Amino acid sequence: MTDDIVSKLEDVVGARQINTGAGVRDFEFPWSTHQACLARAVVYPQSTAEVAEILRVCNAAGQSVVPFGGATNLVQGCATTADDIVLSLRKMNQIEEIDSGGRTLTAQAGVTMRHAQMAADDAGLFFPVDFGARDHCQLGGIVSTNAGGNKVIRYGMTRNSVLGLEAVLADGTIISSMNRYLKNNSGFDLKQLFVGSEGVLGIITRVVFRLGTKATSHNTALLACESFDDVVAVLGCARDAIPNTLTAFEVMWNEFYELAVEPLGRLAAPVQPGANYYVIIESMGVDEERDSSAFHALMESLAERQLFSDGTMAKSGRESEQIWQIRDEVEPVIGGAINFDVSLKSADIGDYVSRVDAAIHERFPDARVVGFGHLGDNNVHISVAIKDSEEQQALGVEEIVYNCLAAFDGAVSAEHGIGLAKRKWLPISRTAAEIDLMTRLKRMLDPKNILNPGKVVSPDSKPESPNGA
Amino acid sequence: MTDDIVSKLEDVVGARQINTGAGVRDFEFPWSTHQACLARAVVYPQSTAEVAEILRVCNAAGQSVVPFGGATNLVQGCATTADDIVLSLRKMNQIEEIDSGGRTLTAQAGVTMRHAQMAADDAGLFFPVDFGARDHCQLGGIVSTNAGGNKVIRYGMTRNSVLGLEAVLADGTIISSMNRYLKNNSGFDLKQLFVGSEGVLGIITRVVFRLGTKATSHNTALLACESFDDVVAVLGCARDAIPNTLTAFEVMWNEFYELAVEPLGRLAAPVQPGANYYVIIESMGVDEERDSSAFHALMESLAERQLFSDGTMAKSGRESEQIWQIRDEVEPVIGGAINFDVSLKSADIGDYVSRVDAAIHERFPDARVVGFGHLGDNNVHISVAIKDSEEQQALGVEEIVYNCLAAFDGAVSAEHGIGLAKRKWLPISRTAAEIDLMTRLKRMLDPKNILNPGKVVSPDSKPESPNGA
Repeated sequence: MTDDIVSKLEDVVGARQINTGAGVRDFEFPWSTHQACLARAVVYPQSTAEVAEILRVCNAAGQSVVPFGGATNLVQGCATTADDIVLSLRKMNQIEEIDSGGRTLTAQAGVTMRHAQMAADDAGLFFPVDFGARDHCQLGGIVSTNAGGNKVIRYGMTRNSVLGLEAVLADGTIISSMNRYLKNNSGFDLKQLFVGSEGVLGIITRVVFRLGTKATSHNTALLACESFDDVVAVLGCARDAIPNTLTAFEVMWNEFYELAVEPLGRLAAPVQPGANYYVIIESMGVDEERDSSAFHALMESLAERQLFSDGTMAKSGRESEQIWQIRDEVEPVIGGAINFDVSLKSADIGDYVSRVDAAIHERFPDARVVGFGHLGDNNVHISVAIKDSEEQQALGVEEIVYNCLAAFDGAVSAEHGIGLAKRKWLPISRTAAEIDLMTRLKRMLDPKNILNPGKVVSPDSKPESPNGA
Repeated sequence: MTDDIVSKLEDVVGARQINTGAGVRDFEFPWSTHQACLARAVVYPQSTAEVAEILRVCNAAGQSVVPFGGATNLVQGCATTADDIVLSLRKMNQIEEIDSGGRTLTAQAGVTMRHAQMAADDAGLFFPVDFGARDHCQLGGIVSTNAGGNKVIRYGMTRNSVLGLEAVLADGTIISSMNRYLKNNSGFDLKQLFVGSEGVLGIITRVVFRLGTKATSHNTALLACESFDDVVAVLGCARDAIPNTLTAFEVMWNEFYELAVEPLGRLAAPVQPGANYYVIIESMGVDEERDSSAFHALMESLAERQLFSDGTMAKSGRESEQIWQIRDEVEPVIGGAINFDVSLKSADIGDYVSRVDAAIHERFPDARVVGFGHLGDNNVHISVAIKDSEEQQALGVEEIVYNCLAAFDGAVSAEHGIGLAKRKWLPISRTAAEIDLMTRLKRMLDPKNILNPGKVVSPDSKPESPNGA
């Protein structure tokens, strides 16, 4: 079948837009979680029509297709086998329009986040999604995974900023829902099917993003807190005092902070390590004087209430960057670790991490457990490093983390998605009826299970609810 | 069949929770668009389990069911025939929890918007959706129609504030997606299927809303503008100057303003009638001094640029209410008129309304055409009154309004939805492939077409795309 499919796909995109053999093995991943690329071929369409034709050919042959954006996800969302066709959106990288009056950005799915951010900035506007993988991740990928990031507390998840999109179904049908209006209740909002479904219901080819107002004021503070209750109280005060300009509220456990400031040298750290928790608060607005005075007033009120033991406010853009560098210094923490991304009530997060920490150490005395995350969004990341970790041990760690989570009615994925890596744990957060409905949607839209097979749901398994299709 | 179904439903809810005959005819609608209620019976479940059992019974019998929230929609979204069962959510009216820390409100679907607003306010928080029908509309209804309203420019449509929901499918399956976290990417976001699909895919029984910070500062201005370009420029300035606190940007054509201030007496109007356009700008925040100074600075800059010819700023809550009363005085405008709710580029709205006005008057010289709407959200309402209007004339008016709209790539419904009234016009805004996909979703989730039949999509018609199921 290989030759047949590859030659048919060559007919669609031309021989120069398809790689096989060494061309597949040489595929470069920007991100560390991938080893070498496995695939029958990597194909690079340059238009929606080509994507549609590729899917028609593959669907007719029952050929599996794995869509690649930047492939920066952390849940094996782009995992492939040697039998798959990789469909890379990399060459669909055109920004089609920035409408300054309507405040929209219309682009092909392969545009990187950085490209979109810079284009919005050049137009005097603001692209509302941001996170560490910005140089590599692509708009189609951030939409199909409903990506989160650092500014969710202000702008919501990616879903909230997507006005329209175009997607191609498994059978090649093009669903063009390129809405560009804030309000549009003309029938079902079909784009929602494709936002956050990780490429298993369709391949996103174009998107319309809502842009925001470019900020001219930035205020950033780094605070050390001694109790998690104090951290939660700081969050409450920030929400009450600067609800409209609060753009980030991050928390780091001391273990994270120590690891992150190590390269700086402890003495050069803006706040000394050794406290129990570290918090970054950021506000963005358009009025330097008023925003700065409101931010200072918040800090004074936190100091009066003795909610932090040490802290600093950035006095320049450079100082703000230094603070954010600490938070962005995740590689020493997550590299080689088993990483989690869960959501639960913000007020419960301290207790939850303590319980996980105790349970992990009971079973793995030498483990290193590190917490950090987006407290304002109910979201904590936990990285667990175990010497000479083996698959069986990793499973043991997952069991502890998710079993603790179930007691808090938490969600197994806050922002990273499910992919292959978390499918096993989905029933902790979703009911059998929900998983059955997801599976029915998958079966309806992709009856041959060719699109990113195995991710999120497993349509070949038996219905999980008595009411299943 | 009547007696059989009614007696089975009596077994489910008890004889006191079901009305037939005169009890149906006496059903009271709070809103003027309904005449008498037509139905086989009106049934009042008091729990999700009862809703599920009602649907199981009706689905087995192929019995159509029309869900009623407040029935305040404007698109025949709750239209019934004498053969339908009406399922009223009115008695599922409990607020289950307000979580002040998590800032969520969890409630049954039959809670009115006013009740939710007051409960949030009592907890020191803010319910983010508001519009004129607040005393009667219910949370299940505003979610199932993805309602808009006056504060969309700041808080988005209802969809943006819904964290979780519970819905019952046609076959009685309960889909419980009662997420309460800002971030949750644990599988497909199934709630999106039920938000805005107008009760044709499932009946919403419970909801989780995200609450906001209660505002303590309110600034309101009413401005008279001579050109639509000036109105658009005022919107741009407001977005740039107060992007985070701008909560409303409304525009009224002079015809609206004249009709609305008539009961007040022209001399008592806060700004004299006779200008071409009137704009209401509102900001809400938590810092009286800073917000007021920013709002005044905006007004000064608009005055310097001579973007308005007359205007007033509310100096008290009472003056603000007086300004909003004008905008809320829609009855003299929409009563007896043919009413539209479309979205298109804000900058095009002036031109569009002028074209509609000219085309209507060419065919109906005595017509009254009145424009008003939420300019900040791309949304304009047009009310067309024709003496002795007949069905054929109404159709002629619709043709003009929507044919003009197609030239602007507009959407036939911005916030009111499709219901029965606009289904005919859906193809102006949605492709055949989109409508076919909507129809496939309907067929999958409601194969016997018992849920709110005829609204939005028509599953009995043939597939509208060659790729249809």
